[in-house]
Amino acid sequence: MNNKARYEALRRHLATWGVDGVLFFDLTVNRYFSGFTGSDGVLYVNGRNAVLLVDGRYTTQAKEESQGASVFEYAEKMRGISRIVSETGDGAVAFDAAHLSYDGYMKLVSALPDITFTPITDEIDGLRAVKDDDEIELLRKAAHVAALSLTETLRNIAPGMRETEIADRLDVSMKAHGGERPSFDTIVASGSRSALPHARPTTRAVERGDFIIIDYGTVVGGYHSDETCTVAVGGATEEMRRLYSVVKDAHDRAIGTVRDGVAAREVDRTAREYIAGNGCGDYFVHGTGHGVGLDVHEYPRLSLTSTATLEAGMVITVEPGVYVPNRWGIRIEDTIVVERDGCSFITEMPKDLTIVG
Amino acid sequence: MNNKARYEALRRHLATWGVDGVLFFDLTVNRYFSGFTGSDGVLYVNGRNAVLLVDGRYTTQAKEESQGASVFEYAEKMRGISRIVSETGDGAVAFDAAHLSYDGYMKLVSALPDITFTPITDEIDGLRAVKDDDEIELLRKAAHVAALSLTETLRNIAPGMRETEIADRLDVSMKAHGGERPSFDTIVASGSRSALPHARPTTRAVERGDFIIIDYGTVVGGYHSDETCTVAVGGATEEMRRLYSVVKDAHDRAIGTVRDGVAAREVDRTAREYIAGNGCGDYFVHGTGHGVGLDVHEYPRLSLTSTATLEAGMVITVEPGVYVPNRWGIRIEDTIVVERDGCSFITEMPKDLTIVG
Repeated sequence: MNNKARYEALRRHLATWGVDGVLFFDLTVNRYFSGFTGSDGVLYVNGRNAVLLVDGRYTTQAKEESQGASVFEYAEKMRGISRIVSETGDGAVAFDAAHLSYDGYMKLVSALPDITFTPITDEIDGLRAVKDDDEIELLRKAAHVAALSLTETLRNIAPGMRETEIADRLDVSMKAHGGERPSFDTIVASGSRSALPHARPTTRAVERGDFIIIDYGTVVGGYHSDETCTVAVGGATEEMRRLYSVVKDAHDRAIGTVRDGVAAREVDRTAREYIAGNGCGDYFVHGTGHGVGLDVHEYPRLSLTSTATLEAGMVITVEPGVYVPNRWGIRIEDTIVVERDGCSFITEMPKDLTIVG
Repeated sequence: MNNKARYEALRRHLATWGVDGVLFFDLTVNRYFSGFTGSDGVLYVNGRNAVLLVDGRYTTQAKEESQGASVFEYAEKMRGISRIVSETGDGAVAFDAAHLSYDGYMKLVSALPDITFTPITDEIDGLRAVKDDDEIELLRKAAHVAALSLTETLRNIAPGMRETEIADRLDVSMKAHGGERPSFDTIVASGSRSALPHARPTTRAVERGDFIIIDYGTVVGGYHSDETCTVAVGGATEEMRRLYSVVKDAHDRAIGTVRDGVAAREVDRTAREYIAGNGCGDYFVHGTGHGVGLDVHEYPRLSLTSTATLEAGMVITVEPGVYVPNRWGIRIEDTIVVERDGCSFITEMPKDLTIVG
């Protein structure tokens, strides 16, 4: 990891934010800068230093993992922060307001009454959005493990197999191929359950004539893959093929708009208008995509209200879907890297309609 | 689930808190009352009604799952809350200040400028602490699945096996026996790595003469098991046996103090003083235990600074440990139910020193 460049980029923001230093409570941001992978800790960065604050459970691990930050062990978090910030002499401190609770904020202010605190939220979102080569390599590895595993799993799907069994096989396969854990609870939604955008696998047995939405991913080196394939069991009627084409074309057209400098909402609008133009506008109930990295959902969002602009090096999903209640659903998702004149694919599975079983 | 009794108990608190209603942002609290298992949503409860607020991704699921709460779909969360709270005519509203970010709080206040908001934190902690029979049954099921799985896994450990392999086998076994997912990332820490209280499994191969700390659990019906066994590989020296006895005796003595009405800190003090009296005081670097339920860590904490009093029906862990840096560590953990005159065990594994391999 190229942590030095990351700290340098961060330090260039401090003056813009009008602060001497910044407190990160978000463990993902903490990991991005310091390399620390524990589940509790705070990172303080000012113009000269970075301090990783942890409790006694994590001191050894923090010292092993930390890159570019010294480690300070606290007995009580807010008192630890108070000590470290006071020692610097800094007077103006930013904090990530989306990851500190209201309760925590009240404690922080009372522990450091002389500090001027500046809440920042949107300012932080962009810090991790453009990926470096190391990050893209890990994202590709994760997507490759995922594709190997889904290929194996699809080969074995047959009518009568339960959704949970398909999900379990996929999870076991991803682990066997080197994935650290699933990126999220694997979604396998068949038949009318495919109309639920976030269905969890049930004991329903898949049947001929079903669509199965498989939304899945795995983690390598902390980086997430995210991909959705919708397959048909046993065959597909004309109606199924037509609906699949609408979503696939929306997906392709949306991806066709992606390049450095394009507004994220334009990608969403392209998918949304195409789906609406094909009579399915009411059935596309979520955004078109999101950034992917150390978090499976991160900046930027691809939605109608997004104000983000895509930049070369951002890694995003494009995942339009159509969900006809009580009937069926289709979602097709790839993860891609934004490039100067277009994009390249991180995910590997083909997205033409696949018949299984 | 006995949700009606849960809502009734909650409503008795509203007057004490001096409010008309309460907003829950914590999804676990939301699930406890409404049964909703989705990963985004807000619950509003006042003296007459309960409303589960979700976005379009979760509307169908919320309607399927919700018990005792009507479902309201929002396009934007704070605007949805504003609409629902405004419609009630309520003027004073509590919110769980530990689960709403500072940023979210600022948005809430600006969406509902006429409402008096009261932050509550400790008041919420206790709501889920005393478990009903349905909850204890699920906790027992989870612990039973975990014990079956660890028994199988221990049988197969041999010198040369990697920590990651042991953890993977245990995870696969828990899933095969009906666990929904691990309660947390399974810890398998051998040799000098057992001195790290929260080590993650590495590719280190276990050796004769190692201690292996296995801290593991699984989830059934949303309820977590949590248990730690420390085993020795191939045999144990006198020194290892002596150190194990210190932790085991501390564990037994601490459990011996548990009954309705005892201060949580007394349980911690018992373990801590016993370990210190045996020359290991510097090596016990965490609290003695915590509540377990829909969260794997919940109220009450068992630590020196805890102000909680144990009540019959609370489910807690007791998990003293000793960690000698660069050398080895031992932790012994059971989950128990507090009873009027003592306690009973949820976890099933024997805690005498076990030799494997």
